[in-house]
Amino acid sequence: MPVRVVGFDGDDTLWHSETRFHVTQSEFRELIKRHAPDADVDTRLAAMEMRNLSIYGYGVKSFTLSMLETAIELTQGRIPASDLEVILGWGKRMLMVPTELLDGVEETLRGLSERYDMLLITKGDLFDQESKLARSGLGDLFVGVEILSEKNVESYRGVFKRRGIKPEEFVMVGNSLRSDVVPVVELGAFAIHIPYEVTWQLEHVEEDALPPQGWVRLAGIREVSTVLLDDLRSSSASRA
Amino acid sequence: MPVRVVGFDGDDTLWHSETRFHVTQSEFRELIKRHAPDADVDTRLAAMEMRNLSIYGYGVKSFTLSMLETAIELTQGRIPASDLEVILGWGKRMLMVPTELLDGVEETLRGLSERYDMLLITKGDLFDQESKLARSGLGDLFVGVEILSEKNVESYRGVFKRRGIKPEEFVMVGNSLRSDVVPVVELGAFAIHIPYEVTWQLEHVEEDALPPQGWVRLAGIREVSTVLLDDLRSSSASRA
Repeated sequence: MPVRVVGFDGDDTLWHSETRFHVTQSEFRELIKRHAPDADVDTRLAAMEMRNLSIYGYGVKSFTLSMLETAIELTQGRIPASDLEVILGWGKRMLMVPTELLDGVEETLRGLSERYDMLLITKGDLFDQESKLARSGLGDLFVGVEILSEKNVESYRGVFKRRGIKPEEFVMVGNSLRSDVVPVVELGAFAIHIPYEVTWQLEHVEEDALPPQGWVRLAGIREVSTVLLDDLRSSSASRA
Repeated sequence: MPVRVVGFDGDDTLWHSETRFHVTQSEFRELIKRHAPDADVDTRLAAMEMRNLSIYGYGVKSFTLSMLETAIELTQGRIPASDLEVILGWGKRMLMVPTELLDGVEETLRGLSERYDMLLITKGDLFDQESKLARSGLGDLFVGVEILSEKNVESYRGVFKRRGIKPEEFVMVGNSLRSDVVPVVELGAFAIHIPYEVTWQLEHVEEDALPPQGWVRLAGIREVSTVLLDDLRSSSASRA
């Protein structure tokens, strides 16, 4: 069955996102070190994010709240409110920075949109994601947008059902093995993995937990056009 | 054309929400008064929420971030981090409290679901809304869930298009004139307004800005069944 629908992840697939978090986290580390020089800031922040995930979900607002809580804990409440105000400001800055597209995204998507129905399938904060899409200038290329609170077998199955998509005619493109590849392949659809320069700790997947076939790894989004012209079904996974 | 699809707002239509905010806001007022006895806490918090709306969107996490920023501003940074930690805790508590259904909701929805396709159409934070729906036990009654970042003519039009709904066969039920009535009536669909005991300041609509027909006001959700049995189209607005 030929490919009819192509799904794209947004963060770190179409536009830069994790770099925003990395820059802010460096500033956060420096700020905390001034009050608690021996603190293992990154480990504690990651643990806090993990602990808060089931309460806050994903996104910049959740990250900001976890930074604040970590700052207070690591300094035993000694951090002045003015420093916490600085952290609040970082959160706002992250939400307001222009959407910066990855190299080759615009031309590739314009080309593909002539041949396929394209869906944006992201997770995270609804408001932030819609705002980023609006600022990306890509909105018109998608026949639909799905913002999920979590990307797993269940939620992809929901997308297929809502949109009348058969797994055999669907390809998902994204930078996260855990969110964009594993659940999609499990449902019998095909996935294209395009690694981003940085991966968030919570998105890591052990290589031996990866499906043996049903997906490929490409170096950049421009190659998606080439691969879609081939018969995807006959390709097997490349772990290169 | 007979009614085929009934849309329901969630917060303060199916389950209590604004009361969570009111309780927390009372505690917030008391906390701030200890540091800044003359501060007009409610006005300043409302102004902060309004100012942050285009950055944060709706929801508990946005509310929590605005409380923190207001607390720091009103105390000129004098508030100790331990008090800000208390505010963070209130936010979490709001996100974790059980979903408390309004009176009559469950039986009314069960009855209506046998005759109509029902949609949950809410705005606010995706993660929080999905979590509340899951805990409500009502999930199975809806053929679909739409969580919008804003409820306006544009976003309702999107729902109609995605779901193949004609305005003439759609009725929206909700507690907000601004979000559940005005845009729906403008699109030619029918709306049922069920006021809640408290209305958030940003949801207020001037009575003379209301459409003259295309909607009714009911005292409670149980009456929805009765009204839907009548010919809605012939009813005119009741401002009683």
